[in-house]
Parts: sequence; structure tokens; C-alpha cells
Amino acid sequence: MSARGVRAPVAVVARDTGKTCAQRCPGVRSMIARRRALVTPRASSTAKEAAATVRVDLGDRSYPILIGSGLLDDGVALREHVTSSTALVVTNETIAKLGYLERTVKALEGGDEKIRVETVVLPDGEEHKNLDVLNMVYTRALETRLDRGTTFVALGGGVIGDMTGYAAASYQRGVKFVQIPTTVMAMVDSSVGGKTGVNHALGKNMIGAFYQPECVLIDIDALQTLPDREFASGIAEVVKYGLIRDGPFFEWLEANVDKLLARDADAIVYAVERSCINKAEVVAADEKEGGVRATLNLGHTFGHAIETGLGYGEWLHGEAVSAGMCMAADMSLRLGWIDSSLKDRTINLLKKCNTPIEVPEEMTIQTFMDLMAVDKKAANGKLRLILLKGPLGECVFTGDFDQTKLRETLDAYVKK
Amino acid sequence: MSARGVRAPVAVVARDTGKTCAQRCPGVRSMIARRRALVTPRASSTAKEAAATVRVDLGDRSYPILIGSGLLDDGVALREHVTSSTALVVTNETIAKLGYLERTVKALEGGDEKIRVETVVLPDGEEHKNLDVLNMVYTRALETRLDRGTTFVALGGGVIGDMTGYAAASYQRGVKFVQIPTTVMAMVDSSVGGKTGVNHALGKNMIGAFYQPECVLIDIDALQTLPDREFASGIAEVVKYGLIRDGPFFEWLEANVDKLLARDADAIVYAVERSCINKAEVVAADEKEGGVRATLNLGHTFGHAIETGLGYGEWLHGEAVSAGMCMAADMSLRLGWIDSSLKDRTINLLKKCNTPIEVPEEMTIQTFMDLMAVDKKAANGKLRLILLKGPLGECVFTGDFDQTKLRETLDAYVKK
Repeated sequence: MSARGVRAPVAVVARDTGKTCAQRCPGVRSMIARRRALVTPRASSTAKEAAATVRVDLGDRSYPILIGSGLLDDGVALREHVTSSTALVVTNETIAKLGYLERTVKALEGGDEKIRVETVVLPDGEEHKNLDVLNMVYTRALETRLDRGTTFVALGGGVIGDMTGYAAASYQRGVKFVQIPTTVMAMVDSSVGGKTGVNHALGKNMIGAFYQPECVLIDIDALQTLPDREFASGIAEVVKYGLIRDGPFFEWLEANVDKLLARDADAIVYAVERSCINKAEVVAADEKEGGVRATLNLGHTFGHAIETGLGYGEWLHGEAVSAGMCMAADMSLRLGWIDSSLKDRTINLLKKCNTPIEVPEEMTIQTFMDLMAVDKKAANGKLRLILLKGPLGECVFTGDFDQTKLRETLDAYVKK
Repeated sequence: MSARGVRAPVAVVARDTGKTCAQRCPGVRSMIARRRALVTPRASSTAKEAAATVRVDLGDRSYPILIGSGLLDDGVALREHVTSSTALVVTNETIAKLGYLERTVKALEGGDEKIRVETVVLPDGEEHKNLDVLNMVYTRALETRLDRGTTFVALGGGVIGDMTGYAAASYQRGVKFVQIPTTVMAMVDSSVGGKTGVNHALGKNMIGAFYQPECVLIDIDALQTLPDREFASGIAEVVKYGLIRDGPFFEWLEANVDKLLARDADAIVYAVERSCINKAEVVAADEKEGGVRATLNLGHTFGHAIETGLGYGEWLHGEAVSAGMCMAADMSLRLGWIDSSLKDRTINLLKKCNTPIEVPEEMTIQTFMDLMAVDKKAANGKLRLILLKGPLGECVFTGDFDQTKLRETLDAYVKK
């Protein structure tokens, strides 16, 4: 896929929405200009170019998201953002076995003997996203005597990204870090925006920090080895952007979901880029989730309850969010905030994605209520939810809703 | 002790140094003005006034340190800085048994039924400053459903302050917190400046965050129940300020150490205030320890090696720092950077404080070398130390020294 190959869909973004990303959020304008500049062929460069670059605009903590094919092995882009003489690559058993760890170490070293790259391989899965496994990262860093000037590199999916980011935020009170996401979920969501952390037995992501990476390097080739179930789980988060703020993207997904699930490279780059643009805009507007950032959690309050209730690792995060978004759409309809067609379209698209549109049988209403009560978005003990309201692409974050409708949704979705 | 009772020594600060705090650091000027304003009698107020207020100047993260007698039970100052409807007081078994926990809860509630105050009591001691015990704080906060709007209150010594601050930095990615230090060590050092964290088996304070409190409330009455050994340990950190940047304060300590150890209230308020002023100036100039803040760690690299080498809890932090400062003075003399009289005065003053001036017998040179190599101040694998250089009150933070002198100091101090 050429660097030019992905420009066409970006132009479509502007036409489809009527309102471009740049119009919505002025900070993105420079980003788009920069992206255009990037596709100008550079005759003298041998480095692999990113097909697209999205900039997350956070003042002196701004950073680029590089998206393309072959970026990992090339190494030039990576070494541009890892300037320390040591690095610690954090990954999991699955990724290591697939050869990505070795390739990342090689790319970081770049043949320079003065660069020392250490590695730590964690067990794979959400059920290992806890303080005990996090401690393995600190231990490795201390055993290999990495000092404050080092860089941590997250190589993996959302769990590895969140844990490595939090380890970086807290190791010696903060070292630099870089994200190399290897799953759709991590590429379109968790690697961008600086939310890092681990789970607690009583709640998901309850321990963490806002901590921004130096850069996010997305090599879409890594998706070639991703199991179908995980791929689909990530697409559920992509659907979310359409629902909460980008109606035309939702429509594009309705038309292109088969192509996407067939892993068409152009479709993937487009979906990843457009997701990242949406996420970057939201994060730039509200880094620490004082308001609009919460909308990125559509379906997540229901979803987190499912994940925690089942025990981490039973359902993938995107699977739980998929069911959660159906519940949010259902509740929005009951509140009279959306047309029934929007609920139907939501469920139909997620069905096509092969992600759950119902809640697991084991869940009880009591479990839902208990787990939702400790959600981070609660304020003064009052539950707040992201719900759809208005036409496709619009939502609200509110605690101001008829509680009986929540109960009706739970009654409709929960078997026990 | 009247509020006016402590103004005289502050005036002495200005006279003694020739260079006032305000001249050294412009940000402190407003602080001093504010302190003066505070001592103006307020006819209509029934609230207990702080005898002194020191302001830590960090832009939008600035906060006051209130120092006085009876501040805890009064509660007005505390409630001014804890504005949430819930709070979690974190303390240890010792402090709880002495009745401070109950008094703090009462002060926070202030008779208002709408305010919910939860508590968690941790085991006492540096050996419990780890991730497992930290998890008790998260668990309690989640069990009692405290949301992002809550405030954590650290009631105790340095260990409780560091752990509570770090728990606050990381619980739901950050909640507010307030420090109520109950030891000399915490009052003069650890509660001020936002360094929070826990230990790792391989190194002290290796996991943490820079996270500033809303306020530090120092009620010197709490020192009445502090054991002599802990009191003396804290005074070692007070001596440090004299050595690194405040020669006249060192001289005041030489003249008043007996009064201080006899727990004279005026002497305590003066020593605490002057220590806080010194610390606040350094922190305001260099919050994240890019440079000058490192000088606050005089003796700490040696000291941390002793603490870690012996196992946390064997020696108190200030005891290890006391021996470490003797080693730093010794090495500074060997480098020809100070007169022998300064080394002698350092050792004599610490001897008077009843804190160690020699290293524990169990320590080996190899243990020192291994543990010092993972010190956070190392850069690119090179050990950096704070050493005295020049007349009393001056020091340097450097990795540029003759390594054989470090070895000579270790040979002189370490038995094995």
C-alpha cells in the first residue's frame, strides 16, 4: 500500500461530514496540514514513511501517532522518539512468540552498540492487569539498573499499553514511554490519550495515571497475526466513534465492515486513522476527563460491570463494550432520546462485527447495580452514563435521567 | 505559645543570613507578606490560628503549610482545605491507638451529617511501605465507594504521607489529598514537596509520583507522643537544611539542639518553619528534581543503601541519613572541598542529636556499591552524589568526582 493510497478516504472524511475535523477542533488543522506535507514524496529519504500522522495536541505534552505499514522493522521513526541510551520493552508471551519482540529490540538498537535494550515478558490477558504483574516491570527495570533517563516501550494490546504506561508514570516517579500497539483495540483507542493503569479486584482501571507517551507507532502489519475474536473486539471501539461523534464514519462502517473484517489494508488504515483523529480531538479538548472525554466511554459502564462481574479475561474489553453499547442504545430509546432505527442500526452493525449484542447469562441485575455504583464517572454517589441523544453521531454524558429506564434496560437484558 | 511568639526567630532568619529567603527566591516574598498578615489578631474569629504559614509556590498547584498548636482539634483550617463530601483518612496502628485518628475524623466531620469520613489503618513501619499495603488503601476506598471527588487525608509520619499521597495520585487516576504529619521527619521534610511513593524490594521509593497536596497541616502538639528515637531521627533532616543551604540555621541548631530535643515548643515551631521555608524554596525552584532539588538528598544515597541493605525498618530513615551525611562530609573532606572543621561540626551536631554517625556493622562495601548503583539520581549509569563544597551551607550535586575518594570513604566507614 503506497503512502498515497490512504489519502483518498481522508478526503472523503471532509466531504462526508460536512463539518471537517479541523472545523470541529481548530487544533487539528495544523495536524492535517502536517499530514498533507508528509505525503509529499521525499526523494532522498530511505526511511519508511508513515502513511498517516495524527497529532495529539496537548501543549508541551503533544505527540504524534504514526500509522503505516512496515514502520516497526524500519526503526527510523522509532529511534527518532526513543532517544535514551537504554530502553525496556514490555510485552506479553503471545507477542513475544510471534517474533515482534525480537524485531522491536533490533529496531531500537539500530546496530548501535551503545544502546542497551532490556525486555520483560508478562503473562497475556486482562486478568493479569494488576499490581502484582505490574511489579514484574519494576523488578526487571531495577534488576537491569535502568535509571530515570530510560524509555519504556509498550509492545502489545491495550493491557500491555495501559500497564507499561502506568509503570512508566510511576517508575522512579516517571520515565518516558512509547506505545507500539499490536491490536485494533490498542491502535484505535487505548494507546492514544494517556490513560494508563491497572485493575483492582473491585473495579477496572481503578489504579492509574494520566501519562502521555512520546509517540504512538502503529504498524498495521501487526494485525496480520491478530485472532479474529480480538480483531472484532477492536472494531466495536471503532463503531463507538461513529455513534458518539462521527455519523458519517458510522455510515462508512455500515458500508465497509465486511472489507474491514477481511483485513483490507486500506480500510484498516482509514478506520485506524479516523478513529485516532476522533480520539485525538476529544483528548486535546479534555485531557483529564472533566467533561467531553467521558463520552469515549459509551457502553463502558455497562461493559466494565460485565468484565468485572465475569472475572477479567472471560470477555474481551471490546466484547463487553459491544454489549454495553447495545444497552446504552436501548436505554436511550426508552428515554425517548433516539429513534428506534438508531438502536436497530447500532445492534445490526455490531452483529455484523461478530461482537456480543447481549449480556452474558451469568450476570445478575444486582451484580450490575453493585459494579456500576463504583464506576469512576460517578459523582457524589450518583451514577452518570453516556447515552445517545438526537440524530446519529450525538450523545450526552449525564446523571440526569429517569432511573426506571435504567432498570427497564437491565430487566430487558439481564436474565437473572 | 502565642501566634506572635514565633515571629522573632523569623526576623532572625533575615538578619542572620544577610540574604533573606525572599531575596533568594522571589516567590517566597508573597508568602512572607501573607505570614505577616496572618499574625494580625482577628477579633471576630474563634478559629485557632496557625502560628506560621509557609506557602509552597507552584503556580496552580501552590499550597499552604500551616504550622501551630491545637490546629487539629480546631478543625476549621482542615475543613477549609477538604471541601469534598467524603474523605478517607489513612493512618497507622500506632497513631490510631494514640487517639489522633478519632480526633481527625471528628475535625473533618465538623458536626455535619452530610460529610462521610472513612478510615483505613495500615501496619506501622517502613517495612510496610510497599505495593501490597498500598493496595489496602485502594481496597478500602473501593469498598466504601469513594468516587473521584473524594479527598485522601494522610495522618502520620513519612511512610503514611508518602503512601497516602501516592494512593491519591493513582486512585481513579488522581484524587485530592491533605497531609497531617505527626512526626518531625514528616513535618520538616516528607509532607512538603509532593514526592510520593512506595519502596520496592530492590530500592527505596522506586515506585511513585510527583503529586502535590491541597495543604499541609502541622499541629506540633502531635510531637508530644513521639518516641525519642523518632524525634531525633527527624532532627537529622533538619540538620541537613543547615548543611546544604542555610549556614545560620546550622549555627542556630548548634546553639539550640538541647532545647529542641527537650521539645521546647518555640524551638520546635522555629525549626519546623525554617525547615519548611528551605524546602518550599527548593521545591518551588525545581519541583521535579531536574537539578537543585537533588541537594535535599544530602546523605541519602549512602542512607538509602543502609536502609535497603539492613532491610526496611531496622534503622529509621533519619538515622540512615545521619550516618550518610557523615559519610558525605568525610568524602567532601577527602576531595579537599571542605575544611576539616566542617566535617567535625557535622559529626558533633549529629552526635548531640543522638543519631548514628557510623554505619551498621552488617553492611559490606559490596552491598553499598550495588545499592548505590540503582539510586534514582544516577544518570546514564553514572553515580551522582550531593557533597559539601565551600563554606558551611554550600553543596554540589555532581557525578564529577574522584572515584577513589568514594572508595576511601567506604573503606573508612564500612567494617567488612
